[in-house]
Amino acid sequence: MIRVGIVGCSGYTAIEAIKLLLRHPQVEIVAATSRQADVTSLADMHPQLTGRIELPVENLSPAEIADRCDVAVCCLPHAASAPIVAEILNSGCRAIDLSADYRLSTPSLYEQWYGPHPDPGRLGQTPYGLPELFADAIRSSRLVAVPGCYPTSAILPLAPLVKEGVIDPEHVLIDSKTGVSGAGRSPKLASLYSEANESLAAYGVGTHRHQPEIVDIVQRYTGVAPGVVFTPHLAPMDRGILSTIYVRPKAGATANQIRECLATRYAAEPFVRVVAHLPATKHVAHTNFCDLTVRENGDWIVLISVLDNLIKGASGAAVQCLNVMFDQDQTLGLGA
Amino acid sequence: MIRVGIVGCSGYTAIEAIKLLLRHPQVEIVAATSRQADVTSLADMHPQLTGRIELPVENLSPAEIADRCDVAVCCLPHAASAPIVAEILNSGCRAIDLSADYRLSTPSLYEQWYGPHPDPGRLGQTPYGLPELFADAIRSSRLVAVPGCYPTSAILPLAPLVKEGVIDPEHVLIDSKTGVSGAGRSPKLASLYSEANESLAAYGVGTHRHQPEIVDIVQRYTGVAPGVVFTPHLAPMDRGILSTIYVRPKAGATANQIRECLATRYAAEPFVRVVAHLPATKHVAHTNFCDLTVRENGDWIVLISVLDNLIKGASGAAVQCLNVMFDQDQTLGLGA
Amino acid sequence: MIRVGIVGCSGYTAIEAIKLLLRHPQVEIVAATSRQADVTSLADMHPQLTGRIELPVENLSPAEIADRCDVAVCCLPHAASAPIVAEILNSGCRAIDLSADYRLSTPSLYEQWYGPHPDPGRLGQTPYGLPELFADAIRSSRLVAVPGCYPTSAILPLAPLVKEGVIDPEHVLIDSKTGVSGAGRSPKLASLYSEANESLAAYGVGTHRHQPEIVDIVQRYTGVAPGVVFTPHLAPMDRGILSTIYVRPKAGATANQIRECLATRYAAEPFVRVVAHLPATKHVAHTNFCDLTVRENGDWIVLISVLDNLIKGASGAAVQCLNVMFDQDQTLGLGA
Amino acid sequence: MIRVGIVGCSGYTAIEAIKLLLRHPQVEIVAATSRQADVTSLADMHPQLTGRIELPVENLSPAEIADRCDVAVCCLPHAASAPIVAEILNSGCRAIDLSADYRLSTPSLYEQWYGPHPDPGRLGQTPYGLPELFADAIRSSRLVAVPGCYPTSAILPLAPLVKEGVIDPEHVLIDSKTGVSGAGRSPKLASLYSEANESLAAYGVGTHRHQPEIVDIVQRYTGVAPGVVFTPHLAPMDRGILSTIYVRPKAGATANQIRECLATRYAAEPFVRVVAHLPATKHVAHTNFCDLTVRENGDWIVLISVLDNLIKGASGAAVQCLNVMFDQDQTLGLGA
Repeated sequence: MIRVGIVGCSGYTAIEAIKLLLRHPQVEIVAATSRQADVTSLADMHPQLTGRIELPVENLSPAEIADRCDVAVCCLPHAASAPIVAEILNSGCRAIDLSADYRLSTPSLYEQWYGPHPDPGRLGQTPYGLPELFADAIRSSRLVAVPGCYPTSAILPLAPLVKEGVIDPEHVLIDSKTGVSGAGRSPKLASLYSEANESLAAYGVGTHRHQPEIVDIVQRYTGVAPGVVFTPHLAPMDRGILSTIYVRPKAGATANQIRECLATRYAAEPFVRVVAHLPATKHVAHTNFCDLTVRENGDWIVLISVLDNLIKGASGAAVQCLNVMFDQDQTLGLGA
Repeated sequence: MIRVGIVGCSGYTAIEAIKLLLRHPQVEIVAATSRQADVTSLADMHPQLTGRIELPVENLSPAEIADRCDVAVCCLPHAASAPIVAEILNSGCRAIDLSADYRLSTPSLYEQWYGPHPDPGRLGQTPYGLPELFADAIRSSRLVAVPGCYPTSAILPLAPLVKEGVIDPEHVLIDSKTGVSGAGRSPKLASLYSEANESLAAYGVGTHRHQPEIVDIVQRYTGVAPGVVFTPHLAPMDRGILSTIYVRPKAGATANQIRECLATRYAAEPFVRVVAHLPATKHVAHTNFCDLTVRENGDWIVLISVLDNLIKGASGAAVQCLNVMFDQDQTLGLGA
Repeated sequence: MIRVGIVGCSGYTAIEAIKLLLRHPQVEIVAATSRQADVTSLADMHPQLTGRIELPVENLSPAEIADRCDVAVCCLPHAASAPIVAEILNSGCRAIDLSADYRLSTPSLYEQWYGPHPDPGRLGQTPYGLPELFADAIRSSRLVAVPGCYPTSAILPLAPLVKEGVIDPEHVLIDSKTGVSGAGRSPKLASLYSEANESLAAYGVGTHRHQPEIVDIVQRYTGVAPGVVFTPHLAPMDRGILSTIYVRPKAGATANQIRECLATRYAAEPFVRVVAHLPATKHVAHTNFCDLTVRENGDWIVLISVLDNLIKGASGAAVQCLNVMFDQDQTLGLGA
Repeated sequence: MIRVGIVGCSGYTAIEAIKLLLRHPQVEIVAATSRQADVTSLADMHPQLTGRIELPVENLSPAEIADRCDVAVCCLPHAASAPIVAEILNSGCRAIDLSADYRLSTPSLYEQWYGPHPDPGRLGQTPYGLPELFADAIRSSRLVAVPGCYPTSAILPLAPLVKEGVIDPEHVLIDSKTGVSGAGRSPKLASLYSEANESLAAYGVGTHRHQPEIVDIVQRYTGVAPGVVFTPHLAPMDRGILSTIYVRPKAGATANQIRECLATRYAAEPFVRVVAHLPATKHVAHTNFCDLTVRENGDWIVLISVLDNLIKGASGAAVQCLNVMFDQDQTLGLGA
């Protein structure tokens, strides 16, 4: 059995990770940590887990976590995560980090968008948690950086198409819409029900950290840095991301050819479904699937990508990476 | 023109009050107060008000408010409101208080549920802001206490039926469901979109402050204290309250007779609609209406009451009371 | 492997049944039937199933179904189901019926609420699909009637308490709230998004078929017919039922004692969780759990019951019954 | 008083039109027509209107409508509307048509997207119901075509910017998201609550009729036909449209300059608010406002436009046009 610790177990990604791992035949969750003082157990903290897992919530040190676990799934905020992850790794345990701290290629890029990096050596050496693109690197690594939710939805369709040269990377317009769980579980005005319900709004226009992440990773995969314009929007639903991506075809590629290119590229990947119909976020909710389709309109190609921001956009990807790291079938614990 | 000040202008009831008063032909909003430091104007604080009203948000003292206004509509939290309201009244200005501070009949009852009262003399002398039942007292008062949202939905059907002796007051089971705006605008975990959406839960079972308020006011109106069992529930919508009230009929009264009793009692009231169909909260959303109907099931009478918690349950009632206090048509500013 | 056929595969209960059975290690779905002409496969009919199951949708006769399957999970409408189920049984196959056709005890009761019964002989001989109460009968039967969603939420707490004599069965007031998927998938005005969203309403007051079902089954289990007053409400969410049940305690039983009674009764049942906190429907969404708690308010006991109307209220119960019928662990395919 | 008839009073646009006109001091609603046989009055058909208007629902002929009214607000489906509108006009009454039948410039364009036009003579002679752009033509016309909801949200920002030459009209990518009421009130699978809730999906990609409408009207206003790529999406809310529009600036225009251009153009228009913040659909819900802002991201300009699809996107625009046609203040009946 793979002994897993959930580091920072109070948020949505932690809850989803726990629920997925409870179904994983090779995993035993052996630790759940939090600095919250007033909770005793996971069921106490998350009533939905009553009777499904008996585990205290403890304020463990990285060394204690490393001692008890084979791998730590870290659900801590950006900047707070890296110091903990670094210690966990130094103590000999593997780590799957859901924060942004190890995703980017260089410390200077991280510094531009997040601030000085606490563990710059590992940055740039850490595989990006998309097995569809980086399985070999993930397999041989002790640390994996789980992608941002929006970036997964954009990189999965874009990276192969840029690599194949069937789309023009110079203008890539990504219009993304997310459910509110993507904003996390800390009480903030904008995340209140009566603020977000029955409303749709753009945010972070031109300033969102996921834009440089998308560019960085596509460049890592293809050698080409796309000219990305990324606009996130908050939509009145719990979960789901739909990204509508506008690109110009190259070399007279048609929508059908571009869809074929994706279908071929992902034919062997269990969690990417290239479909002919227009996918809804509800089709993939509570699953690790990312559904992709391709349309054309005038001179433009319209790529549509849907996924569940908490699953394929976070905790499902974490479990998928865990499976790769531990040489398991990628679908273990992730359903059919 | 009636000069109105909005005291505490950051929450949902304040926003609704402002929007209603903007349509009121006899009202001018002359002050909006808040202790929030980082906002300059109402439109700055509430972007939806852009271009609809030009008014700075100021941290005014009660005396300053009283000096500028004919009446202050106070949207402050319980316990915090009474001291401010008292000073405003002492400075010669009228006040309409949306908090619970002046609703109950005795300081000891208030103390039981809220704590020591800052202005006990006025408690018990203050009319309860339901013009359907207390119009004369409201008309001649300088201070009115706007009811709690749930109490309005329950008292409107119950009070006349208890008074007429057509229902047994001993067992009154009130099962209420509210939209999330009733929880207010301060960032709290339970009010987060991803907590409240796609979920329904009871809360405050046996402990909710609106239960003694309902008993107290029905007794004030009828002389009889009903045996109320009140269960509130949080429902995944912005606004609306539906109360399903189970009572035993007295003297062989039928559902039709009981509905007739309500229809007669409220025939002249512009905002209570006694209907034959089963009303939905959406029928009254964004209006000051309370819709009532009556059904029977076995030995029990089932009363159903719907209203908009922010309008008839709060700010619409405030405007309705303002109209009574200033001898205007009750419907001014409250649409048709 | 247990070969399962889904009879009538276009609705929500069918989709949920398929998703649950896909995770069931002992089940193979071998048939999916529909009279819809324009679909070829399950994935064609339900895009979310793309790549998860390859199965044509066929218009099979009951005999063809029986020939291919060990058990048919029937998701047909009331009255339409019984003739098909009867033929399937006559052809030697087992059946799990999600309609109301075999739930009630007598043909005359069925006739009162649904119309003449097409297969009266089997009515009254068919176990009610609540393994928590009727496991033995289910185990030895070739036909099981899956309960109505609301009845499950009410019967699970009521039946043991009536049997134990700790509550007064004469007045049982059940105030239930359901998500809209309970209304089914046929296009009806009341089920439209813009009708149901942001709204709450009661329906079927005094006339809902689930009221006699609750009475009938509690009587079947306890010998006592409770005086039930049942009020359903439509709530703006996809799934979930919360039932707030008002009863009088007997013999001075306290809320704690009543909760203990339930906790003891259900200690060995994997899917009933008797909890101390107030449960939300979200705690049990997408699971087969029913969470129960007990409170008191004045002279009344307040029971609260939550479940997912599509899972424990329908398709999860169907799978749970399948497990019992085929001597499997009840939790197979139903997660943790 | 202006006597108004509502032709086709069962749908959402009709309900909104009625509610707006009830607040209009110069309007009296004198007729409401429907072919629905089983309703007697407006309140009978729409319970929310109980006590707000006493008016029978009648199956009137166009001549009867024309006889009773000064203007008919027609809420009929496309293709069904034009014959009725034509007769109403021929009988001497004015008409405001909410269908698409009179929006486009040429019968051949209409035929391409809708089918043969029943009244081609008037097509091309009919002003488009955007007073911000076409007030003079509206003022002197007896027939006005209310725009499509999506087109209003796109044309208001685009038309002046194309006219001023500050954006490149060759590539205009419009990513729009709408609430479900835009789909209308007829029972369809895709409009069911359990289909649309908790989900987001694109539809009509490359095939939506509003794309040619946007091109046609911008060309009508500016002389230039923009290269529009329009992608609509269905979002899980009742009402609201947010359009995110990606364009290239011309002549080095910055986002600030472009916003200034819009602010200047619309300074005198009561219902277009050019704002600095990122507007949410909730800011304009239940109002006739369209809020616009401008951002830049890389080489691209991002225009954001929000409105209420039922108000500024339909019935509010209808009332606004009525005011222009009858020489009233544009804001009458449309609040502040």
